[in-house]
Amino acid sequence: MKDLIIDIEPMVLDRVVEYALLEDVGFGDLTTEAIVDRDTRAVGEFRCKQPGIICGLPVAQRVFKKIDDTVVFEALVCDGDSVKKGDVFARVIGPARSILKAERVSLNFLQRMSGIATLTARAVERVRDYDVVIVDTRKTTPGLRVLEKYAVRCGGGRNHRFGLFDGVLIKDNHIAVAGSLVEAVRRARKRLPHSLRIEVEAETQSEVEQALEAGADVIMLDNMSVSEIAEMVKLIDGRALVEASGGMTCDTIEAVAATGVDVISMGALTHSYSSLDLSLDLLIEDANSK
Amino acid sequence: MKDLIIDIEPMVLDRVVEYALLEDVGFGDLTTEAIVDRDTRAVGEFRCKQPGIICGLPVAQRVFKKIDDTVVFEALVCDGDSVKKGDVFARVIGPARSILKAERVSLNFLQRMSGIATLTARAVERVRDYDVVIVDTRKTTPGLRVLEKYAVRCGGGRNHRFGLFDGVLIKDNHIAVAGSLVEAVRRARKRLPHSLRIEVEAETQSEVEQALEAGADVIMLDNMSVSEIAEMVKLIDGRALVEASGGMTCDTIEAVAATGVDVISMGALTHSYSSLDLSLDLLIEDANSK
Amino acid sequence: MKDLIIDIEPMVLDRVVEYALLEDVGFGDLTTEAIVDRDTRAVGEFRCKQPGIICGLPVAQRVFKKIDDTVVFEALVCDGDSVKKGDVFARVIGPARSILKAERVSLNFLQRMSGIATLTARAVERVRDYDVVIVDTRKTTPGLRVLEKYAVRCGGGRNHRFGLFDGVLIKDNHIAVAGSLVEAVRRARKRLPHSLRIEVEAETQSEVEQALEAGADVIMLDNMSVSEIAEMVKLIDGRALVEASGGMTCDTIEAVAATGVDVISMGALTHSYSSLDLSLDLLIEDANSK
Amino acid sequence: MKDLIIDIEPMVLDRVVEYALLEDVGFGDLTTEAIVDRDTRAVGEFRCKQPGIICGLPVAQRVFKKIDDTVVFEALVCDGDSVKKGDVFARVIGPARSILKAERVSLNFLQRMSGIATLTARAVERVRDYDVVIVDTRKTTPGLRVLEKYAVRCGGGRNHRFGLFDGVLIKDNHIAVAGSLVEAVRRARKRLPHSLRIEVEAETQSEVEQALEAGADVIMLDNMSVSEIAEMVKLIDGRALVEASGGMTCDTIEAVAATGVDVISMGALTHSYSSLDLSLDLLIEDANSK
Amino acid sequence: MKDLIIDIEPMVLDRVVEYALLEDVGFGDLTTEAIVDRDTRAVGEFRCKQPGIICGLPVAQRVFKKIDDTVVFEALVCDGDSVKKGDVFARVIGPARSILKAERVSLNFLQRMSGIATLTARAVERVRDYDVVIVDTRKTTPGLRVLEKYAVRCGGGRNHRFGLFDGVLIKDNHIAVAGSLVEAVRRARKRLPHSLRIEVEAETQSEVEQALEAGADVIMLDNMSVSEIAEMVKLIDGRALVEASGGMTCDTIEAVAATGVDVISMGALTHSYSSLDLSLDLLIEDANSK
Amino acid sequence: MKDLIIDIEPMVLDRVVEYALLEDVGFGDLTTEAIVDRDTRAVGEFRCKQPGIICGLPVAQRVFKKIDDTVVFEALVCDGDSVKKGDVFARVIGPARSILKAERVSLNFLQRMSGIATLTARAVERVRDYDVVIVDTRKTTPGLRVLEKYAVRCGGGRNHRFGLFDGVLIKDNHIAVAGSLVEAVRRARKRLPHSLRIEVEAETQSEVEQALEAGADVIMLDNMSVSEIAEMVKLIDGRALVEASGGMTCDTIEAVAATGVDVISMGALTHSYSSLDLSLDLLIEDANSK
Repeated sequence: MKDLIIDIEPMVLDRVVEYALLEDVGFGDLTTEAIVDRDTRAVGEFRCKQPGIICGLPVAQRVFKKIDDTVVFEALVCDGDSVKKGDVFARVIGPARSILKAERVSLNFLQRMSGIATLTARAVERVRDYDVVIVDTRKTTPGLRVLEKYAVRCGGGRNHRFGLFDGVLIKDNHIAVAGSLVEAVRRARKRLPHSLRIEVEAETQSEVEQALEAGADVIMLDNMSVSEIAEMVKLIDGRALVEASGGMTCDTIEAVAATGVDVISMGALTHSYSSLDLSLDLLIEDANSK
Repeated sequence: MKDLIIDIEPMVLDRVVEYALLEDVGFGDLTTEAIVDRDTRAVGEFRCKQPGIICGLPVAQRVFKKIDDTVVFEALVCDGDSVKKGDVFARVIGPARSILKAERVSLNFLQRMSGIATLTARAVERVRDYDVVIVDTRKTTPGLRVLEKYAVRCGGGRNHRFGLFDGVLIKDNHIAVAGSLVEAVRRARKRLPHSLRIEVEAETQSEVEQALEAGADVIMLDNMSVSEIAEMVKLIDGRALVEASGGMTCDTIEAVAATGVDVISMGALTHSYSSLDLSLDLLIEDANSK
Repeated sequence: MKDLIIDIEPMVLDRVVEYALLEDVGFGDLTTEAIVDRDTRAVGEFRCKQPGIICGLPVAQRVFKKIDDTVVFEALVCDGDSVKKGDVFARVIGPARSILKAERVSLNFLQRMSGIATLTARAVERVRDYDVVIVDTRKTTPGLRVLEKYAVRCGGGRNHRFGLFDGVLIKDNHIAVAGSLVEAVRRARKRLPHSLRIEVEAETQSEVEQALEAGADVIMLDNMSVSEIAEMVKLIDGRALVEASGGMTCDTIEAVAATGVDVISMGALTHSYSSLDLSLDLLIEDANSK
Repeated sequence: MKDLIIDIEPMVLDRVVEYALLEDVGFGDLTTEAIVDRDTRAVGEFRCKQPGIICGLPVAQRVFKKIDDTVVFEALVCDGDSVKKGDVFARVIGPARSILKAERVSLNFLQRMSGIATLTARAVERVRDYDVVIVDTRKTTPGLRVLEKYAVRCGGGRNHRFGLFDGVLIKDNHIAVAGSLVEAVRRARKRLPHSLRIEVEAETQSEVEQALEAGADVIMLDNMSVSEIAEMVKLIDGRALVEASGGMTCDTIEAVAATGVDVISMGALTHSYSSLDLSLDLLIEDANSK
Repeated sequence: MKDLIIDIEPMVLDRVVEYALLEDVGFGDLTTEAIVDRDTRAVGEFRCKQPGIICGLPVAQRVFKKIDDTVVFEALVCDGDSVKKGDVFARVIGPARSILKAERVSLNFLQRMSGIATLTARAVERVRDYDVVIVDTRKTTPGLRVLEKYAVRCGGGRNHRFGLFDGVLIKDNHIAVAGSLVEAVRRARKRLPHSLRIEVEAETQSEVEQALEAGADVIMLDNMSVSEIAEMVKLIDGRALVEASGGMTCDTIEAVAATGVDVISMGALTHSYSSLDLSLDLLIEDANSK
Repeated sequence: MKDLIIDIEPMVLDRVVEYALLEDVGFGDLTTEAIVDRDTRAVGEFRCKQPGIICGLPVAQRVFKKIDDTVVFEALVCDGDSVKKGDVFARVIGPARSILKAERVSLNFLQRMSGIATLTARAVERVRDYDVVIVDTRKTTPGLRVLEKYAVRCGGGRNHRFGLFDGVLIKDNHIAVAGSLVEAVRRARKRLPHSLRIEVEAETQSEVEQALEAGADVIMLDNMSVSEIAEMVKLIDGRALVEASGGMTCDTIEAVAATGVDVISMGALTHSYSSLDLSLDLLIEDANSK
């Protein structure tokens, strides 16, 4: 794993992996236990069937470890590394029973996480000439946010707030309740930890102006056209961080980046990615030669 | 919800929903709690922004109930119903704080589940003239299998085995260990519950013949061409159920169905769907008029 | 453990064992901690006080490991092996505190599981001349089904479905609701995974005939006399698997087996067994000699 | 439930019931959901098929409530009441789906708990002319101790300590480590809560004498003959409570009681009982008449 | 509860309360169940035995609800309200058994939380003439952080970051690893969510100058004297928020506030408070008059 | 750890530690992961900043192990040992990331537990010339009772009952319900395990006399003056154990001890202690020298 990437906390990982295994393996892999004896050993190779960015190796490793801690999991690349079609990126060696049991779950994790990392890397590549960061959103798969946000980091993106509890984002409904944007920001400033920036969602120039007046730290321009964004960046002029949001895709973000925004948030990174096509090829030891 | 669909067990649903909420809401929605007071009430309308099959209403209902059991959740359609762009399919009424907190998680569930149901319905529609069933696989999102398999049912599909513990599927690696396909089937027959059918994966005519000889109940034709499948169906001639599998998409299944197979299994139903675009529009009660 | 027996999944075992230990040991073994110091070591021998089939060794091992992973647990036989009165079948070596703490719980598991295995072996022995399998039911001790069904396997029996979620059994009440047996089977066929056989409970010849007509895969003859069973076996004539059920005991099953049924299910295996009498004899190291 | 019986703590009950249901129902009752529609209702009657003491009604009630809180559970007797063959002792009314799902688990609890209560009542009856109490041991089914000890109370027995953490029982191994019985008692006295009595296991007269000298509060006479017990009771002469233990059965306890012991502990109450034969008879509402 | 206070999330509260009850009540309140029958009812009054700020009413309410949801809990003041010695601030009505069971745990929560709120209010009062906020730290009781931080809010304080995952605080060790303060800030800026401010701990003027150069959003002056703090505030001159920290007590904070710092963080709020003396007086209904 | 102290059960410890870590570390230590790379190692020294009794070493060890089992934790003293200002009492060596993550939580445990042990030792010292034991109460911090009662033992105190489930204490309200003290004792004797002593709270001489008449094993003199206590001790004259309770502090207990009571219970041990001032000083390996 590349040194710069913030890791998945092991205690958190454990819970996700255990739950996934209970769901798939439950009280046992009937077919395998009925047919494969305890002593048969196997070697498995994880192989890419299409190019992309690999992500999820520590998760896959954990899956095998949970099933059987005698299985050796050997990663040949790091999370965040780019792979070509045909590359073998990891290897497992151990009892055939255990490898067969863990196969599907490990692939289910790897394919989704690599899919997100690959899409993120593509997005990041599109804006590499600009001083802008690509971030994710809360539009993640229920139960997998920790992994999906990690995959975004592995693809070269950054994370927005994790959930509702670690960041402030004032939206239209909050403003409606408070009576005005300025009052909404005042309430947030007064009651929330000073360790958090105050971000405000703005859909019009008037709202951007109010956000500046209210002293917002970050202004999210929501669903604006590229030309509107460009205008707002000029208006804001460094007085707040500027985040562009709303329907951002790999095809549109370069133009947005060119406006000079600081941050582009893309829900698509976690809700519209494709799984990366990966396989686990097993070589069962010849039972006769034993 | 349509009467024919097998439900999600409430105890199981509870766990999934609670975990998803802890992930997103954690120890509180800082922005909302700082700005919105306890007495403000709101009405929210769930609206489709593209046509499709709605799925996940009992899940969304559970999300709101967990956050605040005074919120009223009113479904206007049933899971499995078809909706048009612009349709309001559910409504929530209650404290604005609670609705704002539950918004994202309920949408994250609904959009994914409706995406699966919509894709499944499309697949089922393609083969409606044939006596074939469309089933899912174990290529599901870790932690969400119960919900994703339910979504397949809501889209008109059927489920394959849930996991490794409730069905038998003998694959190439099992056969390699057993020494022969016949021996693999024999071991499964001898040791596994008589309540389960024995399914065998076959990639060649020779394997199909061995599977028939071994008395397999179901033969899965894996990654065969349409013409090969057609040939195998003739060869099997009703002596076993026939399942076609491997890279099946909405574009290819009609031809496969025409060969006379009994079952088509599509991993794509749960690993390559797009989320359905849905929104929750809030109407906050005018605070001044109170 | 014999190679042919399907194992207990370690993750599942962990939960059962941990719960049992929390129940008995809770926040500590007061007597032992007050009297026995940390350095005293002991050797314990598990001994049979009556002949039978040993079952539960991996469970007992897990109990000791959970209490203290420095305790060495040495099994001298395998689960499923037959033992004579007086045989030592396992040995533990480690801190006296840990062995004393784990003693009762390990015996509580071993005695019950060995009791089930012993009863099952007796039943299997009675029908050894017939081509029939002895299976268990869902009449298991709440919370211990995984272990009890494993014990049945160790005794030479086979398992029926694990629970309501992994097998189909259509009973009189289902038929009553559906309107007819044929309709009940039709609904099950239409909605349930093709990986499962459809089993129907029949109490009369008419029901057997309907089940055949409906194409049931398995027919369970419930509470029939031996002669009725014999008649039904002839009537069914291989068109479905035949399971005999209802009040089966070691005394009655030979006659039932002789009718030619394929399966005999015995609730008694898990609800009417006697614990096998086992003991753990401790040898405390002489404290003075240290 | 009779007023005198100490209840099962609801939070504890919840965990046991939930676990048992997850084990049996898991992600759904396939047969029932496929065949029985949501609107069909049923009435069920719990009936005794042999005389005994009913126990487990609040557990059964909880089972139904967990599955579906619209099911009405109506107890017609109290836990601890005596029933005759054929008596209906409880009734359930609600959706047929829910009643069918909960049937087996509720019976599995009721039959075992009633079996224990019935055996306990028989034991208590045998010694009713003596001033002695019948108590249980730690030889309970792993995971069900709370329920089994409750069943003993419902049968008229009393509980010994719950586990290792709430009572003191000094056995031969503790004495061996301490060097002498007197030293073992001294250590326990010095380190353990003064809210607990100190009980010592004695197998010989010499040990009884030492226990008296050490000031034990309770002396357990382990595996002594009736005449030895009688002699020891005289020797102790009220200076400590006397508990008789070891292989006690309904056949032997009257003679033991006649010796004047204060307490008789019977492991058999929880390890050698027979389930009481109970059934749940369903009446499905006529679907046509709706 | 006062409208301005951010609440405790119910799902989180549930877990804390359940755990505390299992710890104290476990499998039952032996004394109460043996002596008090089910029908006896009682009224209890929560009374202050010293003046202070009440905090924990929703927690106490939850404790009673978990034990028995028929108990009525009536709060007479709101969390954050000031009470005098002798005031009754809440009342419970319900079964005597349930009230007796919940008494100790509810008081254990209320006394500690009110102690924190009272201390916080005292601190806030000391600096009321200054534009400064009093915040807590991570020096909280393991397992109770959610409640203790809520108590700080109820006392009029504000919260610092909740844990390591929702705020950035660069300390000397981080700087040592990075090589320089500027490099440490650069790494944090580059990798962490833009929703978070970057706070740096500084112990010397040189560090403050580096923090300003690095563009830190917040500078924490650690363990400086009042005069040093005053000097640093002038130096910083509004270019960053200023937090004073290190051994702050009610006696020292006024002088610190006078220097013009924005934030004072006090570990003492949660590690050195005294419990507020509260009692629950029960009135048992006269059993004879029933 | 001193040999005489009853340990914390590892399974129980695990849960407390894991919960505390999830609360503080959650999905990661943002600051540390962003700044400190994986390879940097550190050494940390736990140091006393004031004299006292150290307690909590196995807890701190567990905290580090949970975060990263490659961290070496080396205790230089035992729980219960006395330390001077400036003493280094433990050392950790391992990855800097892991040590920084575990720092706060380990200190939060150690400081509180050492505070309790120190206060207990002071109390025990005050009464060392008397044959009396100092015990704790149920006035503990919710969720930490196991640790706090252990800390009392490490300070030389003894434990009263753990909770409501493992000891009997009849209070005024129980007596009010029963109608009389004698009747309350009778009910407890009749229904509760014979392994428990019956303790009765008495506030007047009359109640003490009734308690003696009822045959109580322990009499708790609640809120009596020293002279009243002295009188009651004479009255009781060895017929029951005598416990003095109510507002006991280090300043008052010597006089109470001199009256000849057997036990003094002090709620203050766990509700009014001060944390012991401890620190963890880190030495980060020079990154340049690598």
